[in-house]
Amino acid sequence: MASALDLFGDRWTLLVVRDLFLGRSRFKDFTASPEGIPTNILTDRLERLVSGGVIRKTPLEGGKRFGYELTEKGEALGPVLLAMREWGLRWEEGTRALLEEQAPAITPPGQG
Amino acid sequence: MASALDLFGDRWTLLVVRDLFLGRSRFKDFTASPEGIPTNILTDRLERLVSGGVIRKTPLEGGKRFGYELTEKGEALGPVLLAMREWGLRWEEGTRALLEEQAPAITPPGQG
Repeated sequence: MASALDLFGDRWTLLVVRDLFLGRSRFKDFTASPEGIPTNILTDRLERLVSGGVIRKTPLEGGKRFGYELTEKGEALGPVLLAMREWGLRWEEGTRALLEEQAPAITPPGQG
Repeated sequence: MASALDLFGDRWTLLVVRDLFLGRSRFKDFTASPEGIPTNILTDRLERLVSGGVIRKTPLEGGKRFGYELTEKGEALGPVLLAMREWGLRWEEGTRALLEEQAPAITPPGQG
C-alpha cells in the first residue's frame, strides 16, 4: 500500500473496509454484499489490506476457518468512513449512502 | 454521480477535489500536480464533478478565462478530506499523505 490514496481512491477497497466495520469477517460475507465485488478483486484487495497493515487474518469457529479483522490502523479509519457517510446522507439523498447498507454499525474508535 | 462511492472510490476524483481545496482552480493547475493526472481523465472527472454538483465553472481574470470552484456540496467534503489527511499522516508516514502536497490549506467549513 504505497499511500493513503491506494486505500481511499479505490471503490472496492472502501467497500471491504466498510464491510469489516459492519461486522463482517469472512470472504463469503464480503461477496454477499449488494455491490457484488468479483472474487478475484476481493482476493486482491484483502491481500493488499493485509500487507498494508489495515487488516489481519484471524481464526474463526475454533480455528477451523479464518476471517479478517481490522488492526489498530484499520480501526483508525472509522472517522474517515463516518465523515463519508455523513456527507453521503446529507448530499446524496436518494442513493444508498456509503456505509449505509442495513444498519449504521460504525462508531468512533475509543482510542485515538 | 450515482453515489458517494463514485467520488470517494476514485483516485483521480479525490486528487482534483484536494487541488480545489488547496486553492487551485484552472485546468492547467490540476495538470501541474505531481501525481500527473492525464488530461483526458481530468476532463472526464471535472465534467462528472460539475454534473454531480460538487464543483461549478467560474470566470477568472475578468471573464477572459474560466476555472472551477467548489459548491456548497463540494465544500462539505472538507471533513472527509481532513479525516483522510489525519489518517495518512498518522499511519502512512514516509509516504506523501493525501492532501499533504505543499501546505495544509484545508480548514473545516464554517457552516455545516
